Amino acid sequence: MAETNNEEMVVTPWEVTGRVDYEKLVKDFGTQPLTGEILERIKRLTGELHPQLRRRIFFSHRDLDWILQRYEAGEKFVLYTGRGPSGPVHIGHLVPWMFTKYLQDKFGAKLYFQMTDDEKFLHRDNCTIGDVEKWTYENILDIIAVGFDPKKTRIIVDSKNISTLYKIAVRVAKHMTYSTIRATFGFQDSTNIGMIFFPALQAAPAFIESELVGHNVPCLIPAAIDQDPYWRVARDVAPKLGYYKPAQIHCRFVPGLGRAGKMSASIPETSIFTVDPPEKAAKKVMNAFTGGRATIEEQKRLGANPDICSVFSYDYFLFMDDPEIEDLRFKCLAGDIMCGDCKHVLADRVKTFLKEHQEKREKAKDRVQEFLFNPKDN
Amino acid sequence: MAETNNEEMVVTPWEVTGRVDYEKLVKDFGTQPLTGEILERIKRLTGELHPQLRRRIFFSHRDLDWILQRYEAGEKFVLYTGRGPSGPVHIGHLVPWMFTKYLQDKFGAKLYFQMTDDEKFLHRDNCTIGDVEKWTYENILDIIAVGFDPKKTRIIVDSKNISTLYKIAVRVAKHMTYSTIRATFGFQDSTNIGMIFFPALQAAPAFIESELVGHNVPCLIPAAIDQDPYWRVARDVAPKLGYYKPAQIHCRFVPGLGRAGKMSASIPETSIFTVDPPEKAAKKVMNAFTGGRATIEEQKRLGANPDICSVFSYDYFLFMDDPEIEDLRFKCLAGDIMCGDCKHVLADRVKTFLKEHQEKREKAKDRVQEFLFNPKDN
Repeated sequence: MAETNNEEMVVTPWEVTGRVDYEKLVKDFGTQPLTGEILERIKRLTGELHPQLRRRIFFSHRDLDWILQRYEAGEKFVLYTGRGPSGPVHIGHLVPWMFTKYLQDKFGAKLYFQMTDDEKFLHRDNCTIGDVEKWTYENILDIIAVGFDPKKTRIIVDSKNISTLYKIAVRVAKHMTYSTIRATFGFQDSTNIGMIFFPALQAAPAFIESELVGHNVPCLIPAAIDQDPYWRVARDVAPKLGYYKPAQIHCRFVPGLGRAGKMSASIPETSIFTVDPPEKAAKKVMNAFTGGRATIEEQKRLGANPDICSVFSYDYFLFMDDPEIEDLRFKCLAGDIMCGDCKHVLADRVKTFLKEHQEKREKAKDRVQEFLFNPKDN
Repeated sequence: MAETNNEEMVVTPWEVTGRVDYEKLVKDFGTQPLTGEILERIKRLTGELHPQLRRRIFFSHRDLDWILQRYEAGEKFVLYTGRGPSGPVHIGHLVPWMFTKYLQDKFGAKLYFQMTDDEKFLHRDNCTIGDVEKWTYENILDIIAVGFDPKKTRIIVDSKNISTLYKIAVRVAKHMTYSTIRATFGFQDSTNIGMIFFPALQAAPAFIESELVGHNVPCLIPAAIDQDPYWRVARDVAPKLGYYKPAQIHCRFVPGLGRAGKMSASIPETSIFTVDPPEKAAKKVMNAFTGGRATIEEQKRLGANPDICSVFSYDYFLFMDDPEIEDLRFKCLAGDIMCGDCKHVLADRVKTFLKEHQEKREKAKDRVQEFLFNPKDN
């Protein structure tokens, strides 16, 4: 049922609630909108614009124009993204990873993928080392299943690769004061000192390629915009250490199947996990929140609202091509299609998607070593 | 020339100034004085009381009685001490290390020796990674020259052994809030986040043996009392992680050759460095501050003051046995010996000491690997 959601917007690395106003975020965070001009440039370079760009699922950036300019001049960049292994991966997580794979493929870019197991352990009271070890492994399977190139992908596990990271992180940390970190992340006196140090560790992979090859290499970070505070402080420090500032491209949050807010592993009934049995996932879709009216009669007369519909969101974020999604939008607004129909279509696609992903995920179990960062063979 | 020094006492891990009132420190820090009863017990166990115990150079402790009780019941303890490699070692540094060697020998104890290269880099504005690497190596030579048993000694270099340390440190850090660390160390908003995290890393070696052998092992930390804040916060966390609280035995600061305050590498003319050419060190002794009177006539008539005399301090801390030091004290008070005579005696002993130390230090260059911590062969 359609309802507006007026809950206040909160966007931090640990919390995304309320209906997100992306224009306001661009303004608040001081990032740049992804303009048509930049998209044209990407299209020229890649031959093909990813739907997540066309649809502005990636909608904001910092220094992406600079990255493209360097690339045009023959200088390759590395990609860096990450995952906090605190629970199972849901298909919302896969959205930016799929886009990252597109960037890797089209730009021939090496990718550093950081598993922030330490941060997850430090942040959650009842999270044990055993928990994060388990989820690190499980989540890596999903990352590999997305199809990254093993020759060009290095998965960094903080606790395992701390030796490489710490060397960079101490140099970064020396330039990050408590007052900057408190103001940027909203830390309090009761925050533990591991969390306070962590922004230096999350900055480190942005500079790792430069350290390993011995000269500066541009770095582009595709990630949801809630991670921006980390890159903001990393960018401030970079020139002080002689590194390039890491560039970013920011995506929206994939909504959950509930009323509003991003898909979150902590609300399992509104999240489609990659390991959900397909039939179970289909049932979640059938219970999803939509933009429909109270009665079929009313919906036929007034049309429904795709803009607040979680089912439409999924089609938009993941499953439908441009003509199909435009057609659906039109039919929905016109009252020519009922929510039950849309749910069935989405449920089928989710089932197919999950079956395929789960097969790749199973195969990934034999390939973990290929992807893990090893400073020796880098 | 004798003068009292009324400069306010400041004792922190980074600053020791003013005339130190050790009784007040015991009260302020909440430690226990080293009683005759404990000394008797150590004598019973070791057969011989080290002069630094008899003279109360080690004067305070936490849970040393508990360590002895465990030892008497057949449970061995490990020793843990450290060094911040920010400059050359002076002979004041050697005092607690010599005592640590005595504990190692008498109790057959394994020793973890932490080189806090990261902390030194983080703490000093104009200190580079290159600086701390150089001093780490140079200082390790001095540590080895003290004569520790290579089979029972593991030198931990933070930046090199971070992989082992970080595993423990994140668990420690999760229980250390910023407010505790700020209150304990006097940190400010302008403190960098590396320094804020560091207390978790300095706590880690206290628990390393327990981690490596898989059961709790008592740990005794011999160190100057300015390091106590680190152990205080480590002790608070230990039971939360299921570890024993680390015990401590605290020593006084070896005074410099100047007016007051501990010997400090930052005032080179009042510090005898282990690498000083013996003749140069002898000259520093000849320029030392003493407790003497303005004229020889006056000194003969009124006697001098050994309690504020840096030359007497050296004899007391390092060079003279009990009858000799008692005799000197008596003669000094009575005006039966002049400062120049004392300086000559000390200068000769310093020269002999340095020559011997420098020979051992030279030989240590071939033995560094024997002493370095390696998690694989632990």
